[in-house]
Amino acid sequence: MAHVSLPEGLPGIVGLLEQFPGTGRHLRALAQELLRGPSSLSPGERELIAAYVSSENDCFFCMHSHGAAARHLLGDRAGVVEQVRADFEGADVSEKLKALLRIAKKVQLGGRQVTAEDVARARAEGATDEELHHTVLIAAAFCMYNRYVDGLATWTPEDPGLYDQQGARLAAQGYL
Amino acid sequence: MAHVSLPEGLPGIVGLLEQFPGTGRHLRALAQELLRGPSSLSPGERELIAAYVSSENDCFFCMHSHGAAARHLLGDRAGVVEQVRADFEGADVSEKLKALLRIAKKVQLGGRQVTAEDVARARAEGATDEELHHTVLIAAAFCMYNRYVDGLATWTPEDPGLYDQQGARLAAQGYL
Repeated sequence: MAHVSLPEGLPGIVGLLEQFPGTGRHLRALAQELLRGPSSLSPGERELIAAYVSSENDCFFCMHSHGAAARHLLGDRAGVVEQVRADFEGADVSEKLKALLRIAKKVQLGGRQVTAEDVARARAEGATDEELHHTVLIAAAFCMYNRYVDGLATWTPEDPGLYDQQGARLAAQGYL
Repeated sequence: MAHVSLPEGLPGIVGLLEQFPGTGRHLRALAQELLRGPSSLSPGERELIAAYVSSENDCFFCMHSHGAAARHLLGDRAGVVEQVRADFEGADVSEKLKALLRIAKKVQLGGRQVTAEDVARARAEGATDEELHHTVLIAAAFCMYNRYVDGLATWTPEDPGLYDQQGARLAAQGYL
């Protein structure tokens, strides 16, 4: 049972956004800008970073929702989602994305963990200021969303089909 | 030196909000709603939770900015800011606020750390759904803001006078 009263049948963050619309609209708008707004990182790559950080934070709802969104957006490269969760350095993704995922992992542990060497590695693989910024802020933002979802003990369905449906909707329609 | 190019002379998150306005406006709007929007927790109490979580995350800029904002808002009770940082259970704040600070601490460690007993203690001291919600989301949001500021290695001034000025401005004008 969730720690606060929430509408019936709305899993994870969805019930929170409905029950608390004053904060919900800003949380939705931030997710839309970060994951679908202008960026040279594709929406699929950004969802992959979000899913990876959610996995490191052990947030079942976010990991499976954003993992499914990433799979729908990545199409025939959908298999990399599980590879990244298991071991991003060995995953079939670009060297630039591996370097950005390493930065995301450091941010998940704590902002001060990111080193100049981590940033230099990403730049050597072609990462831009905007890509470094988005990677750090996506990782930081999912440290918020994950804690919000689990800190209030929201309903976490286990049916994979539900997450697949939600991922398809997020891939097609975004967060607004 | 920051990990990305930022405007000269703007410390901490301020330079990031200016340089990246697409995300900046949503980050400002969320802070305004959480810390100044409608709530039965006072803005001073909410800034105190923000300062405490920033202190636990060892984010110098956020801890001192929001600590100063809390002092300005709390007026003759300003001394509780340092008490809470050092040991909130022994601080001169209400039993309800102590119970909420304990929940904030758990959220800082990770969302799954919050227990039904933590929530029951806060409810026994009179905490409402909205207060529990705001406490969890403020704590979660500062796990984002702190990582954003430190993960990009923004400029962190050390002059206490600068934080006092900034705290006065945040107390008077908010985040928009």
